[in-house]
Amino acid sequence: MRKIHVIGIGAGDPDQLTLQAVRALRSTDVFFILDKGEVKADLTGLRRDMLEAHLTDGTYRVVEARDPERDRSAGGAAYSPAVGDWRSARAGIYERLIAEELGEEETGAFLVWGDPSLYDSTLGILQEVLERGAVAFEYDVVPGISSVSALVARHRTGLNRVARPVQITTGRRLAEGFPEDVDDVVVMLDAHQTFRQYAQEDVDIYWGAYIGTPDEILVSGPIAEAAPRIERLRAEARERKGWIMDTYLLRRRPRD
Amino acid sequence: MRKIHVIGIGAGDPDQLTLQAVRALRSTDVFFILDKGEVKADLTGLRRDMLEAHLTDGTYRVVEARDPERDRSAGGAAYSPAVGDWRSARAGIYERLIAEELGEEETGAFLVWGDPSLYDSTLGILQEVLERGAVAFEYDVVPGISSVSALVARHRTGLNRVARPVQITTGRRLAEGFPEDVDDVVVMLDAHQTFRQYAQEDVDIYWGAYIGTPDEILVSGPIAEAAPRIERLRAEARERKGWIMDTYLLRRRPRD
Repeated sequence: MRKIHVIGIGAGDPDQLTLQAVRALRSTDVFFILDKGEVKADLTGLRRDMLEAHLTDGTYRVVEARDPERDRSAGGAAYSPAVGDWRSARAGIYERLIAEELGEEETGAFLVWGDPSLYDSTLGILQEVLERGAVAFEYDVVPGISSVSALVARHRTGLNRVARPVQITTGRRLAEGFPEDVDDVVVMLDAHQTFRQYAQEDVDIYWGAYIGTPDEILVSGPIAEAAPRIERLRAEARERKGWIMDTYLLRRRPRD
Repeated sequence: MRKIHVIGIGAGDPDQLTLQAVRALRSTDVFFILDKGEVKADLTGLRRDMLEAHLTDGTYRVVEARDPERDRSAGGAAYSPAVGDWRSARAGIYERLIAEELGEEETGAFLVWGDPSLYDSTLGILQEVLERGAVAFEYDVVPGISSVSALVARHRTGLNRVARPVQITTGRRLAEGFPEDVDDVVVMLDAHQTFRQYAQEDVDIYWGAYIGTPDEILVSGPIAEAAPRIERLRAEARERKGWIMDTYLLRRRPRD
C-alpha cells in the first residue's frame, strides 16, 4: 500500500520543523513539490534546502509539478491541469503524481508551508483523490508551526486575551465587517490590506511578512499609525521580491 | 542582562518539539517548571524527559515552583503565592524566580505546553513582571505546535473549510451560544462537555484527549452519536489518570 505524509514545515524558518517532521522527511521516498508560478524560485528553493539539510543525497526523489491555482495558462509543465474546475484539476494532478511517480510500496510526501490544517487545500484534495477510487493510499498529517503562531511569537503577544475567543479569517471576509463578538481577529490571504478599512477604530494591528525568514518585516501599533508604514513596506518588499506572504492580527481595544 | 525564552513544547508528543525549540533548550541555564497540583506527576515528568533527551546532564538547572492557578491552598512550596489576586500572585512568583534563581548573565526558560500564544498566561505574566520594574530581562518566544493543530492533524481534517473562518474559544463561551457567522469552532478549557448542548443540531465533533501521548483518545462523528462515547471515555480516563486535557472542533454542517 502506498503511504503519504502531509507535512507541515513551518512558516518559513527552517528551524521551525518539528522532530516529527524531520522523521517523516526521512521516511519519504518521493517528495511532491507543487509550485505556484512566481513564488516558485524562493519557496521551492527553501524546501529543497530543508531536504538537503536533513536527508542524505540519493536517498529520495523530488517531483515538481505545477499547481493550477495561480497559473493555469502556463504550458510545458509535466502535470498541467486538464480542463474543468480547479479542484478537479488539482485532484487530477495529485492522482497522476501518486499513481505515476510513487511505487506501490513507497512513501510520498507533500510539504506544506505553515500548518496543513489552516487555509491549505492538500488534505481536501487527497480526500477527493481517494474518493475517485483510481489510486489507493494511506495518509497521515504532521502538524506544523502555522504562520499565525509564528506571527504572534515574533510580536511576543498572545492570540487571544484571557478567556476570550480568537477568530482566524480571510481578507475577503474582513471586508464584509469586523466579526461579531470577537475582538481578536487574525487575517490571512489578504491581498488588499483590508485592515485599512478599520483605521478609524480603536484597533491595534500586529503585522508580519516573510515571517521567520531573513526578509522578515514586522510592524505593530494602532492601525491609523501603522497602516501607512505597512503599505509602504509591503509595496517595496513586493516589488523587490516579486511576491509577498503576510498575515496580521487585529486587536480591538476594550471600550470604556 | 538576563534572558528568558518562552518555549512552546508541543501538545504532548516530545517529537513535536521544533528544531528552534531544541536550540533554545540548549542555550538555557535554568528551566522554571511551574506545576499545577494533580497534573504534576505526569506533565512535570514529560518535561524532564524532554530535557534529558536533548541536553547534557549537569549543564542546566531545573527550578520547580507551584503555580497558584489550581491549588492556592497548598502550603509548603518554596514559591507559594502571597495574598492578592491570582495574576499579581503569579507575577510575584515569576519575579522572585527570575530574581533569585537566574544569574545576571544567565538564560532562563519557561516551557509551555502547546503554543505560548493560545490560552496560556506566561507572556502576560512576564509583561507584568517587567512593568513592576523590580527585575529586568529580555525575552523571546518560540512558537509551538498547539493542541489545536495536533488535534486536527490526528483527525486528518482542516481547521477551516475553504475560504471560511474558524473561531477558537472556551467552554464557558460556547455555553452562551454557538458563535455567530462561524461554522467551525475549536473549544478549549471545557470542563463541562458543553458540546452536549448542541447534540440536537447538525454538528460534527472531532474530539481528542492527551493528544500525541500514549494515552491519546480520539472520537469523531455527529455530536448526537459521539457525545455518549466521549462522556464515557472521558470519565474513565479522568478516573484512571487523575486529570484530563481535551480539546475539540465543532463543525456545523451546511444547511440546505
